[in-house]
Amino acid sequence: MARRLLIGVVGAGQASEKGARLAEKVGRRLAEAGAVLVCGGLGGVMEAACRGAVRAGGETIGLLPGPDPAAANDHVTLALPTGLGHARNVLIAQVSAALIAVDGEYGTLSEIAIGLKLGRPVVAIGSRWQVPGIRPVETAEEAVELALRLAEKRP
Amino acid sequence: MARRLLIGVVGAGQASEKGARLAEKVGRRLAEAGAVLVCGGLGGVMEAACRGAVRAGGETIGLLPGPDPAAANDHVTLALPTGLGHARNVLIAQVSAALIAVDGEYGTLSEIAIGLKLGRPVVAIGSRWQVPGIRPVETAEEAVELALRLAEKRP
Amino acid sequence: MARRLLIGVVGAGQASEKGARLAEKVGRRLAEAGAVLVCGGLGGVMEAACRGAVRAGGETIGLLPGPDPAAANDHVTLALPTGLGHARNVLIAQVSAALIAVDGEYGTLSEIAIGLKLGRPVVAIGSRWQVPGIRPVETAEEAVELALRLAEKRP
Amino acid sequence: MARRLLIGVVGAGQASEKGARLAEKVGRRLAEAGAVLVCGGLGGVMEAACRGAVRAGGETIGLLPGPDPAAANDHVTLALPTGLGHARNVLIAQVSAALIAVDGEYGTLSEIAIGLKLGRPVVAIGSRWQVPGIRPVETAEEAVELALRLAEKRP
Repeated sequence: MARRLLIGVVGAGQASEKGARLAEKVGRRLAEAGAVLVCGGLGGVMEAACRGAVRAGGETIGLLPGPDPAAANDHVTLALPTGLGHARNVLIAQVSAALIAVDGEYGTLSEIAIGLKLGRPVVAIGSRWQVPGIRPVETAEEAVELALRLAEKRP
Repeated sequence: MARRLLIGVVGAGQASEKGARLAEKVGRRLAEAGAVLVCGGLGGVMEAACRGAVRAGGETIGLLPGPDPAAANDHVTLALPTGLGHARNVLIAQVSAALIAVDGEYGTLSEIAIGLKLGRPVVAIGSRWQVPGIRPVETAEEAVELALRLAEKRP
Repeated sequence: MARRLLIGVVGAGQASEKGARLAEKVGRRLAEAGAVLVCGGLGGVMEAACRGAVRAGGETIGLLPGPDPAAANDHVTLALPTGLGHARNVLIAQVSAALIAVDGEYGTLSEIAIGLKLGRPVVAIGSRWQVPGIRPVETAEEAVELALRLAEKRP
Repeated sequence: MARRLLIGVVGAGQASEKGARLAEKVGRRLAEAGAVLVCGGLGGVMEAACRGAVRAGGETIGLLPGPDPAAANDHVTLALPTGLGHARNVLIAQVSAALIAVDGEYGTLSEIAIGLKLGRPVVAIGSRWQVPGIRPVETAEEAVELALRLAEKRP
């Protein structure tokens, strides 16, 4: 059995320069660790993370809200146009063994909340959201290391 | 055209005594105002709100996570077993013209976040979640009055 | 407990004159029997059925594919803009105690198939789809009578 | 941009010996062509197709109805536990550039119908469902060749 580990990266569709840099590093580290990156498939944090993963030879799943695969950013290797609208946020939390949040607005908060509800480890870098249960870290390296460690401990 | 106004009431499946009392009043006021109550259809805040609405002659929609209508509380008049799991949280925000949050845990936070993302007015009583954009109020009467007023202003 | 019986009416968004007449009668009969009509909320068969139900004083639930309640036909009293796209077809089958199909194209076929998969009684008038398990009838009266009878026998 | 082509394979959770043999060949051919196999992730046709794909070095996406990745068959490399119940059938059609149906019951019929509704090419081997628009073929080789050719012609 060659089951791959799926780690979600959530964050805003418009990233700050710092956020994009962090997200790209997160993506790269995930790919180097052999994990598959799951995200919403659009721009900002999602795009930066996918770019990092793909440049390190990884696969990236983009769970798009709309029905058109062409809406995915150029670094999504597996574009899944769900057509489910915002319900795809729940899907991201549901299919990921752990979540890493980078920056993020209301959409990201919904993913964090569903992730915590589902018992997923949620690691955050630079998050404005203070939600009990989130694990705040400072660097991309810490984020990936912690997410992988907690994901593997899950039953 | 006899389109009914749909107002969502979100909150935990286990309510404190005070939360249940507030939720029941919210439900009653919504029914008295002619609005249809939308909720997750289960216990706690959802059940108390439905009880209040039904006792005042109102209709209550329960968007259940599972596939079985029998899981709805006894005061749901329109039981919709979505089978969508936690994605039904998004559905509640999506179909409601405004949301009223009473207490609430992670699931409620996800509904608040999606509601704000979608531009829905979100009124909260006794919420532990400090999210910019939420409108905090003290009483059930204020909550319903504000939710109805904001819902009607929407385009 | 005042749980209402939900019966789904499925059919094409563009109805033949005969199809619309049949659908309107189905809607009226459902309302007269006290059932709540569930449909996709758009035009054609859905609109005709809702018109029949509303004129007889009934409630009509429209599970819309998009996020905008204004897309519902004028005879939907409870407009639920799911934002789920075609996944709302599954929702219609899932929440209905029985389905009545009038005419219908591929979308209707998907609802029939999911209905049968879920063990829902599926009654059809004028359906072009020959699927084992469907109950074909000739008139709106028969359709509603059979759907109600089979729905009530369900556990 | 290294976007992968996603092809859905749909069929019953319990396969005949012949169906399983066909599905395994379909999976192998898809992997040999560099396509990623999308399916419901469970047994029968889904499992046989995944086995064929994985043995040829391919990736396989399993869109599971439930919330548990462990429900996936052993040959799913990317297990996505959607938690969406039967709505995951719509997801399979939505994310696939073309569908190949092998045998199949009501669930498969729903996927075929949604696929046709969405304008996806639907190729069928040994299908009991006579739906206008389906492309019947005799062999796994023909099925994959036709699905890939039609998928690539899509805008």
